[in-house]
Amino acid sequence: RVDADRLWDSLMQMAEIGPGIAGGNNRQTLTDADAEGRSLFATWCRDAGMTMGVDAMGTMFATRPGTDPDALPVYVGSHLDTQPTGGKYDGVLGVLAGLEVVRTMNDLGLKTKHPVVITNWANEEGARFAPAMLASGVFAGVHTLDYAYSRKDPDGKTYGDELKRIGWLGEEEMGARKMHAYFEYHIEQGPILEAENKAIGVVTHCQGLWWLEFTLTGREAHTGSTPMALRVNAGLAMSRIVEMVQTVAMGEQPGAVGGVGQVFFSPNSRNVLPGKVVFTVDIRTPDQAKLDRMRATIEAEAARICEDLGVGYAVEAVGHFDPITFDPTLVSTVRTAAEKLGLSHMDIISGAGHDACWAAKVAPATMIMCPCVGGLSHNEAEEISKDWASAGCDVLFHAVVETAEI
Amino acid sequence: RVDADRLWDSLMQMAEIGPGIAGGNNRQTLTDADAEGRSLFATWCRDAGMTMGVDAMGTMFATRPGTDPDALPVYVGSHLDTQPTGGKYDGVLGVLAGLEVVRTMNDLGLKTKHPVVITNWANEEGARFAPAMLASGVFAGVHTLDYAYSRKDPDGKTYGDELKRIGWLGEEEMGARKMHAYFEYHIEQGPILEAENKAIGVVTHCQGLWWLEFTLTGREAHTGSTPMALRVNAGLAMSRIVEMVQTVAMGEQPGAVGGVGQVFFSPNSRNVLPGKVVFTVDIRTPDQAKLDRMRATIEAEAARICEDLGVGYAVEAVGHFDPITFDPTLVSTVRTAAEKLGLSHMDIISGAGHDACWAAKVAPATMIMCPCVGGLSHNEAEEISKDWASAGCDVLFHAVVETAEI
Ligand SMILES: NC(=O)NCCC(=O)O
Ligand SMILES: NC(=O)NCCC(=O)O
Repeated sequence: RVDADRLWDSLMQMAEIGPGIAGGNNRQTLTDADAEGRSLFATWCRDAGMTMGVDAMGTMFATRPGTDPDALPVYVGSHLDTQPTGGKYDGVLGVLAGLEVVRTMNDLGLKTKHPVVITNWANEEGARFAPAMLASGVFAGVHTLDYAYSRKDPDGKTYGDELKRIGWLGEEEMGARKMHAYFEYHIEQGPILEAENKAIGVVTHCQGLWWLEFTLTGREAHTGSTPMALRVNAGLAMSRIVEMVQTVAMGEQPGAVGGVGQVFFSPNSRNVLPGKVVFTVDIRTPDQAKLDRMRATIEAEAARICEDLGVGYAVEAVGHFDPITFDPTLVSTVRTAAEKLGLSHMDIISGAGHDACWAAKVAPATMIMCPCVGGLSHNEAEEISKDWASAGCDVLFHAVVETAEI
Repeated sequence: RVDADRLWDSLMQMAEIGPGIAGGNNRQTLTDADAEGRSLFATWCRDAGMTMGVDAMGTMFATRPGTDPDALPVYVGSHLDTQPTGGKYDGVLGVLAGLEVVRTMNDLGLKTKHPVVITNWANEEGARFAPAMLASGVFAGVHTLDYAYSRKDPDGKTYGDELKRIGWLGEEEMGARKMHAYFEYHIEQGPILEAENKAIGVVTHCQGLWWLEFTLTGREAHTGSTPMALRVNAGLAMSRIVEMVQTVAMGEQPGAVGGVGQVFFSPNSRNVLPGKVVFTVDIRTPDQAKLDRMRATIEAEAARICEDLGVGYAVEAVGHFDPITFDPTLVSTVRTAAEKLGLSHMDIISGAGHDACWAAKVAPATMIMCPCVGGLSHNEAEEISKDWASAGCDVLFHAVVETAEI
């Protein structure tokens, strides 16, 4: 078993970097706080006897050597970046649990045939630079490096420039590494495990996603002196689209979600009808046919809403992945480990996207989940218990050792 | 008649200060650009032989003396501040037309019994600091000076601090000045005069307004892993309120408007359901009973919408004035001036709020309007012709000279 206290202490130390405003974290990608978090993690890896590689997207790979020079490594990864008002565990748990697995292997003097590599994927959240899981996407060949470097934050700064600025532009070619297997341990970010009173989620699939960024063009005009009949009201069109997305998602129950998290009004003045409204619709479902249908319906309905109001309309897909099926062999390795450890478990579908989704394109991959209080995530109040954290880490340890072969 | 070219040149010179991004202006209240605009206006006033007073809100009063030491001044005013993406004429025309009236009086060597004072009211737009017409409101005793000083911009800077910073905190006590009459010349900001092909709007009333700032509290949560049934979606509630405001305003046609110009999502991240949404509803009508009814309906319906969704809800009135009736004597002075000059004219109700609304609380007041292209305002594309500008200025000249008595 891993050292629950050591894992917890590391989580708490990392949480001191980039503190939020309500007990959580704001350690967004490629900020100074991100750089600080990376340095702390690099120090810990060095202290655990690992060597660090960094690729051209800034993803960190810390290697514990294996005994067979020809054996591909077993990867364990997640991310240290957070939402602007994020929790202390989303992503961080997976990286530091990987470190805890290595520390435990060191304690036990375990030697494995395959090297073990702990990975901190860059820009998983996609909050500062869309899309999410950007670095793992480039790694898996889903995006080009040029595309990734040109992604802009709301201030217009590019990923490429910010990566250089914080000093974490690495030299490794993207995707050059080959993986024997990829494991990711993560909090559920949803309510199911807690409600079902299970310690471990054995993740069999991940639902697919579209991020549809709408740009609506109305006519900037005075809110007082512009008669109702003369308005070209982009804000009203946006509101109707938000309601329509809700209706579409409700019509696809169970097993589908849809919502809007980001809205920009321009010029955003109380007495000016917006000339421009930009917002992103997020839709997800594990069912490919449903995902395609939801996207088609939403785009068609949005066009109709905008035409009714005379509002100009453009839509760009700024994030996408199809539903993922994880590697059955690794999934059963995880299930077996939970059983051996006597931990309650259930099969689960990941509601959130994860770097494992892209890793699954280039290697056998799977995930392990632990519950989180109230299913709450992307919220500074995100919470887990030390027992929950360490139970999943125990499963990770056993699955990794099993796969890396003693 | 006034000098149309001189008036136009002054408008174009002022428009060079605080340029916008699409041919208009961004010269928001108490910014460096506002200070620069004030200095230029002060120089012009000095060159026209006037003396400048500044009050504790930063409003500028340039005086051309009268012949009777006991006669109260005739005031002519409007504002030099603009929206973030504002036009070149909204407010500016009224101030610089006042200056043109004085310049023309100087050219003609006219002496009047009453002094003439040209006024640049501070923070008319209310874009940076709500509410609109803040300085004239304090002048008229509607707001306290403390209230005004504590108003905050979106960055949290206060009116009081910013007024000091730009160096325009004056020494005159608020409202100490008494007015014989107040005239304000302004572009219509609506489509009526152009559609009716009239040069002059004789403004008889101004519609009343409420700015209702809603703060909705949802539950920040992951857009992917949070099931529809567990969402507390403040963005959905906001959308329903926007649609409901539209319905309420349409139900009160003709003669009522309602809309939303400003929306803030928090944390405003694509994959986070908003924990907080703040937005402002703007409703207006010239009919007092309708105004009261619209406000009551909107607040009641908003409460119901939020309760349905489990969303927390608070509403604060951040701007308000009741419908205004302008002074009948001054109104007929304006109408007579237009007739004497052979200008087409019609009675009109102001759709926008103006400093004249507050001045009307403490003095006989009225307004003059000229058309603007397509009724467009609060838009950088706001446009008027030189002829339109000077025709209204001619009316202003005659009305002021008539009221100030030769
Ligand atoms: N795990 C997680 O929150 N990832 C961010 C990408 C997503 O929105 O699913
Ligand atoms: N005239 C004008 O645009 N004033 C701003 C206050 C309002 O919104 O009516």
